Amino acid sequence: MSYIAEIIAVGTELLLGGTVNTDAQDVSLLLSELGIDVFFHTVVGDNPDRLKQAVEIAKSRADIIITTGGLGPTYDDLTKQTLAEAFGKKLIYNDAVAKQIREFFNQRMHNTKMTENNLRQAEMPEGCVIFDNGIGTAPGCAFEAEGKHVLMLPGPPRECRAMLEACAAPYLRKLSESEIRSHNIHIFGLGESAVEEKLRDLMEEMKNPSLAPYAKEGEVMLRLTAKAASKREADELMAPVLDEVRARLGDIVYGVDTGSLENTVVKLLREHMLTLAVAESYTGGLLSKRLTDIPGASNVFLGGVVAYSTQSKTVLLGVDHELVYMKGAVNREVALAMADGARKKFCSDIGIGLTGIAGPDGDGSDIEPGVVFVALTTQTGSFFRSLKLFPDRERIRTGGASHALDMVRRYVTGLPVV
Amino acid sequence: MSYIAEIIAVGTELLLGGTVNTDAQDVSLLLSELGIDVFFHTVVGDNPDRLKQAVEIAKSRADIIITTGGLGPTYDDLTKQTLAEAFGKKLIYNDAVAKQIREFFNQRMHNTKMTENNLRQAEMPEGCVIFDNGIGTAPGCAFEAEGKHVLMLPGPPRECRAMLEACAAPYLRKLSESEIRSHNIHIFGLGESAVEEKLRDLMEEMKNPSLAPYAKEGEVMLRLTAKAASKREADELMAPVLDEVRARLGDIVYGVDTGSLENTVVKLLREHMLTLAVAESYTGGLLSKRLTDIPGASNVFLGGVVAYSTQSKTVLLGVDHELVYMKGAVNREVALAMADGARKKFCSDIGIGLTGIAGPDGDGSDIEPGVVFVALTTQTGSFFRSLKLFPDRERIRTGGASHALDMVRRYVTGLPVV
Repeated sequence: MSYIAEIIAVGTELLLGGTVNTDAQDVSLLLSELGIDVFFHTVVGDNPDRLKQAVEIAKSRADIIITTGGLGPTYDDLTKQTLAEAFGKKLIYNDAVAKQIREFFNQRMHNTKMTENNLRQAEMPEGCVIFDNGIGTAPGCAFEAEGKHVLMLPGPPRECRAMLEACAAPYLRKLSESEIRSHNIHIFGLGESAVEEKLRDLMEEMKNPSLAPYAKEGEVMLRLTAKAASKREADELMAPVLDEVRARLGDIVYGVDTGSLENTVVKLLREHMLTLAVAESYTGGLLSKRLTDIPGASNVFLGGVVAYSTQSKTVLLGVDHELVYMKGAVNREVALAMADGARKKFCSDIGIGLTGIAGPDGDGSDIEPGVVFVALTTQTGSFFRSLKLFPDRERIRTGGASHALDMVRRYVTGLPVV
Repeated sequence: MSYIAEIIAVGTELLLGGTVNTDAQDVSLLLSELGIDVFFHTVVGDNPDRLKQAVEIAKSRADIIITTGGLGPTYDDLTKQTLAEAFGKKLIYNDAVAKQIREFFNQRMHNTKMTENNLRQAEMPEGCVIFDNGIGTAPGCAFEAEGKHVLMLPGPPRECRAMLEACAAPYLRKLSESEIRSHNIHIFGLGESAVEEKLRDLMEEMKNPSLAPYAKEGEVMLRLTAKAASKREADELMAPVLDEVRARLGDIVYGVDTGSLENTVVKLLREHMLTLAVAESYTGGLLSKRLTDIPGASNVFLGGVVAYSTQSKTVLLGVDHELVYMKGAVNREVALAMADGARKKFCSDIGIGLTGIAGPDGDGSDIEPGVVFVALTTQTGSFFRSLKLFPDRERIRTGGASHALDMVRRYVTGLPVV
């Protein structure tokens, strides 16, 4: 049988915007792994009437109800009471739980005093399975009633996550039968709607596996997901679709399950034992920052120069003074000279040069914000892209850095670079 | 009259756990500032029937319905259609919106092709107020029907946030009667709970104005909010509290309503007509990137060297080869030599040097990840901080860059630097 789950997060703080609902994300990720469909998340405050209303709605449309939050010791923590009542269950004082709570307090007396309220946390719905809380006082629980499964998890994200893994996952795994597998297909060089146009039939008609697009910072990611009785069967369902997507999109697919462009580039450079240095003007260090976000980048990334002033381009990178004087700092020749300067100064195999106008204002010339030149040079050759990026400073900078990474990826793997 | 709002986020990826619902948080924060109550958040997938169901429920219990997501160009973006239908409104092709979308594409033809799908975004509910999207193609909108206000915002967090501020906030402000004013108090150099300890009485007892903390990337922000019949009255309510907070916290308050540390630093450098250059090792360009995030940074930020390899420290920055050879690259002396190297190479007034171990792995020596040295030098003096930062690569890098910015701020304004 296939299940439908609904997640109810309880906490006024969420409704005030003080915190973001990461618990729902964590629970959803688990459910998606387990092949359990989720159709709704609800957030409700610490208010028993409205929580009851949310539970009644969930009962009418889901098989599994998972709550997060409202299990604490204070007067406004009412999840257990409300859920038990909604399913006609009594709360029963549980000695074993009370003992655990007492021990928890004895072990960290320094910080917190136990109050009688804390012992309210030992009242559990009759007949429930108790979920131990290894890192907090609030135990969770699960029970079955009226053909539904009800699971209650604590609100603090660390506690929720720990209990999800240790208790909720095994409980839910027993319910579900099928295996879910998925691939993330990473694309650079085409917009979301253009990608979709090439794949529309697959996206619209396929149910299992399913194919869905996610746009992210100038890139597109596709998620391919299959559900089957075994992992092997799920993989077999996906293989021909993966081939088809690759065939239609070609080399704009920069990786499958490889993470970000920078991650891909650092990995490729390591595999090919090549080193990289960069010279950045308008991206101001963003490209270096993205490369060094990746642990272990130091094996292949030797460093960079952020040449924000004209003088620094000539002094630190050896760009010809006359060239900058005659033609300005934003053109193909300067990008190439910067790339070569970085390569020579850092003694790297590959050099990148990035110059352009990030905006919102221009540089005094008639070159518009968004005009960008990216160059890649090696001892034997050079490549460059001339771009007009859009729409704001942040994405003009991110886009330029991504183009540089894409050029490195293509160069290292022997694809056409430009 | 006082309003009740409900937020409906539309997007299957939220239900799959691929993304977290930050839009609901952003909208909630705004509504809470405006004094509009929120009783429920709902998340629903890209499914018109279930979205309709969520809208019907929201209609029955809220005065204002705010949706996020589902305004994109693809076949599964159905928010406008579904909401219009739920309120008996037609969708009408809007020439002005179509023109804007076309212009958006014309300006970035190089990268992305416009498809006919994109023009579906020009269909708007009849009689609606259109919310321009400055940074994406999907316009939002608002309409009034059946005594309810319906607002639709795009899903990508940056677009949602921009439209909230530029369009939704003024629209909602008109609905509420009283004036709401607020100040953001920016703090660097003390953790959230320590700040809270110094201000607990104000945070707990004050209702109007109210004072609430928001932790963000190694900093703390306090939001002071007052509600009154006029702006002047609201400002008068806040003034003494602002003074009190400043008195208690002293110079760790780096600004009020000034934005980020980097924003504050760029502004201060401009005011004092001082220039800056940086030499980064383990932060790998992050400090340069943050400085150049600020439009107009080029007036005061001359550039930087990302000296990721040992050789680059000596070749590009003139750090004494013997020093690095004898003492390694992570110590006070190297940080100072890097700062001085940057200052001299770029001919700047102030030089920053940053060296440390970002982790997760060490550098082969016995220095632990998180050990960081930050130096600031000028023609007449030098300052440095030796730090042990936590808990992961990302925050060790962000923390070091923030300390460097804090040192510049303190130097420029004549405060003790270390």
